[in-house]
Amino acid sequence: MKEERILLAHGTGGKKMHDLIEGFFCPKFNNPLLSQLEDAASFTAEEKYIAFSTDSYVVSPLFFPGGNIGKLAICGTVNDVAMRGAIPKYISVAFILEEGFLLADLEKILDSMVESAEEAGVVIATGDTKVVEKGGADEIFINTTGVGFIPDNVNISATRAEPGDQIIISGTIGDHGITIMSKREGLEFKTSLKSDCAPLNHLIKDILGVTKDIKVLRDPTRGGISSTLNEIADQSKVGLLIQEDKVPIKKSVQGACEMLGFDPFQVANEGKLIAIVPKEKTEEVLSAMKNNIYGKDAVVIGEVVDDPKNRAMVKTAVGATRILDMLIGEQLPRIC
Amino acid sequence: MKEERILLAHGTGGKKMHDLIEGFFCPKFNNPLLSQLEDAASFTAEEKYIAFSTDSYVVSPLFFPGGNIGKLAICGTVNDVAMRGAIPKYISVAFILEEGFLLADLEKILDSMVESAEEAGVVIATGDTKVVEKGGADEIFINTTGVGFIPDNVNISATRAEPGDQIIISGTIGDHGITIMSKREGLEFKTSLKSDCAPLNHLIKDILGVTKDIKVLRDPTRGGISSTLNEIADQSKVGLLIQEDKVPIKKSVQGACEMLGFDPFQVANEGKLIAIVPKEKTEEVLSAMKNNIYGKDAVVIGEVVDDPKNRAMVKTAVGATRILDMLIGEQLPRIC
Repeated sequence: MKEERILLAHGTGGKKMHDLIEGFFCPKFNNPLLSQLEDAASFTAEEKYIAFSTDSYVVSPLFFPGGNIGKLAICGTVNDVAMRGAIPKYISVAFILEEGFLLADLEKILDSMVESAEEAGVVIATGDTKVVEKGGADEIFINTTGVGFIPDNVNISATRAEPGDQIIISGTIGDHGITIMSKREGLEFKTSLKSDCAPLNHLIKDILGVTKDIKVLRDPTRGGISSTLNEIADQSKVGLLIQEDKVPIKKSVQGACEMLGFDPFQVANEGKLIAIVPKEKTEEVLSAMKNNIYGKDAVVIGEVVDDPKNRAMVKTAVGATRILDMLIGEQLPRIC
Repeated sequence: MKEERILLAHGTGGKKMHDLIEGFFCPKFNNPLLSQLEDAASFTAEEKYIAFSTDSYVVSPLFFPGGNIGKLAICGTVNDVAMRGAIPKYISVAFILEEGFLLADLEKILDSMVESAEEAGVVIATGDTKVVEKGGADEIFINTTGVGFIPDNVNISATRAEPGDQIIISGTIGDHGITIMSKREGLEFKTSLKSDCAPLNHLIKDILGVTKDIKVLRDPTRGGISSTLNEIADQSKVGLLIQEDKVPIKKSVQGACEMLGFDPFQVANEGKLIAIVPKEKTEEVLSAMKNNIYGKDAVVIGEVVDDPKNRAMVKTAVGATRILDMLIGEQLPRIC
């Protein structure tokens, strides 16, 4: 690539776009499916049931401790597909680039995407590139959409939590959101706080290796564990009661939340999951999770209870119970 | 919806985002799969082979004669999936919205998406919404990703053109691109020129009803028929020779191209396809196409030839042969 920056001509369907795709994207994403450059990729259905999920990524800043927009775009969609118990297999990648975006930065982002896709074991099967004029977008937005295949007898859904089931979280909360907000606010930490951004599909495979009767899996991204627990309570028509002092949180995250005025329960995670599992399988699931690098801090944080109002609630260290509110307002824009 | 404009809070994963999704998107897209609001949609694999395609839409202006960004986003991806001979079935929709975007405009766009999805027979299965601050994006960008199922014995690919095969185009060229550019340049036409934006999957079903041995199907979008024919020549390792005076083009499009300095062969279409078919099936395919509203002006424009240089070529009315060049430069940004 002779040009050092993205030009409008890279998006117009002509010669320069072909040079970008065939000379830059294809060698990076090096795989036979993408390199066919057909209007649609074609592959075999590996199971009877397909899981399908999409997300656009607009995170700012693009690069942050623990990752960048490219790593986030692969991991986030891999995780959404995996949360249905599916094995993620194919992913589409669509870029919206601002005229003038540095090709060197695009290269770093692509390298991260390739690395994360390899770790997750997914194939970047098809793609798209659009370019908008300077000022028409903020540097780069990425959409990824994932296809996975759901093994027989797996039925994971936010509707399946039942009273008595245990609630497990795979690790510390708020790492991603606080990393992004700190970078944006110019805060620095003595500790090496970084985003938890990671593909969780292998962790989920380990969980399903214990029992296929996992009820719910969810990754608490935007809105944090508050939004996720409220959604599950609402969709399963149950109450969820967690113990505040059981929820793992790094001291640096706790401190930053106090400084910035955030509730850590409302802060985004990008490499954590909440699992709701039958009580009798809890210890075994926990033990399998602890053996995986992305679940080593897994812990039971509460249980599913009867509640006609379908609320998510938290029992504080002093024994009081409060409602776990969903985020209201706009304090955390462009977190993913 | 009490607010009349999109707020940053609509994208942060909290209460306002849930209100937008459950109070606005779900009723519009009204279907049981989307309304489950799981991390990923889940559905049955209907055939052994899956087709999978993604596109982001950044067209400017958002509303134009014959459609808007919403209609384009559904039709464009439906068409890409269908060009592999697949029956498009499920589509994901991901919005990037600029803070301050009018909900009334969003509603018009959603209504068009619903209408186009119904016409095409696809289900909007899963979605995502991000909001960026004022100035961080130009109003609205939409990504759609489609999944379709390829019937047995259908093998359509840009690699399959062979000397002797006939090249059919389904109708007039350049309507979409010239409609957009005219609106942008403030030109007005006495004639009712409008975008040809349309879902072509039913037309393709009619074509495959004649014979499953269709070699290539492609929709000549960005870069026009020049890019598409060059791509096919390159991927099939053949030459393509078309007759200039056979290519259907509206007088208003021809006139606007002359005025704006565009080559109509390089101008985008959004409701046309190029089919490459075995010679002996050509008349029958043509006749089936003419019976479909989106193929009524279908015509043979040329044939596949031997050419060691794998060029797309055009024979002019006076009998000379010239190379069909791909678009170079940036004259048609944000056309789709």
